[in-house]
Amino acid sequence: MQRAFIFDVFGTCVDWRGSVARDVAAVLPDVDALAFADAWRGEYQPAMSRVRDGGRGYVPLDILHRENLDLVLDRFGVDVPDRAALNRTWERLDPWPDVVPGLTALRAHGLIATCSNGSVGMMARLARWGGLPWDAILGADIGRDYKPKEAVYRCSVEALGLAPAEVTMVAAHNDDLAAAAAAGLKTAFVPRLTEHGPTQSTDLAPTGPWDIVARDFNDLADKV
Amino acid sequence: MQRAFIFDVFGTCVDWRGSVARDVAAVLPDVDALAFADAWRGEYQPAMSRVRDGGRGYVPLDILHRENLDLVLDRFGVDVPDRAALNRTWERLDPWPDVVPGLTALRAHGLIATCSNGSVGMMARLARWGGLPWDAILGADIGRDYKPKEAVYRCSVEALGLAPAEVTMVAAHNDDLAAAAAAGLKTAFVPRLTEHGPTQSTDLAPTGPWDIVARDFNDLADKV
Repeated sequence: MQRAFIFDVFGTCVDWRGSVARDVAAVLPDVDALAFADAWRGEYQPAMSRVRDGGRGYVPLDILHRENLDLVLDRFGVDVPDRAALNRTWERLDPWPDVVPGLTALRAHGLIATCSNGSVGMMARLARWGGLPWDAILGADIGRDYKPKEAVYRCSVEALGLAPAEVTMVAAHNDDLAAAAAAGLKTAFVPRLTEHGPTQSTDLAPTGPWDIVARDFNDLADKV
Repeated sequence: MQRAFIFDVFGTCVDWRGSVARDVAAVLPDVDALAFADAWRGEYQPAMSRVRDGGRGYVPLDILHRENLDLVLDRFGVDVPDRAALNRTWERLDPWPDVVPGLTALRAHGLIATCSNGSVGMMARLARWGGLPWDAILGADIGRDYKPKEAVYRCSVEALGLAPAEVTMVAAHNDDLAAAAAAGLKTAFVPRLTEHGPTQSTDLAPTGPWDIVARDFNDLADKV
């Protein structure tokens, strides 16, 4: 197994927006659950930026999500009885329908691992929830930083004992693939046209010279 | 899944001695393959000691194994056509017969992960070889040091987002459990009476107040 495929998870493998909204609706029935999910996710990049810029030491995403939940509950003027329990919605995100069969087919061609900004614990529980057959959980925790910082891709590749060119980064986000390519990895783009809902305007098509462009994970397995 | 079991691998989950000897015999038919396996493994602790003591920065075990192979080939006065290929014997170690059914049963009770001195890549390939159903690969690579250094247990526990008391270290080696207990983890001892062959004299019985003592992984799953 001198080849590996590493995957972005939020958006690429799982429908965070629909899944978070489902759990928000269950505990906050009077709130616009999709708007709440979008607002919560909207704090994701700003929170990671402080870590990436060195203004804050590395803390796992579980903690950033929890802090961001506090912000968003305040902004919406609502509260829930158990904030820690709601924060665990990020461990209960449903995979897109092609993900489990596609990953299962891809396992015949190499090791498969996450390369996500989620923590090992979050990703391991998410894998249990959705039945994702990872060989390893890599990404932010092993890089002690957040994508698209180069250390995250490099440390993930090194952990597998491979050269960058032996590893393909799979993502629905062009900026993730651009950073992976800059670190020497191969790249595969799989669009997720409704990650941000029906009016999504970003990442509808590949914007770089990615090694593979596939319709979904089944198509990716066919093309490998 | 607010509970986890993390496992020593060499000796506890897999029969390194018999498996390495099998691969050595295939390429060095005139050598005492078990003696060669014992000599190769004999260089394991000295090589890690330099990293633990700070005399050498962290390098993954694959590299230490490869250096130790050079030493042992010289000592035996033999050579093989492809040293890198023989070094990959450490990715082809057979699990003891109770390991796969025991781990499968334990998965119902918590997350299961390695906490080995092997690298992520080595452990992921070993899991493929033996069908070990890990949720995550933890240990030396995430701790950037070697057991029994405290950082390896602590970083493994933190990666899972758990408190030390929510995690049970499972090992056939009393010194590994002593270090895990000192780091606040729970402990489970599973003897492997023939890890070092029929005349093994160490780790035949528990020597500390371990939380669980089990005959094998099936018995461990029953006792959890």
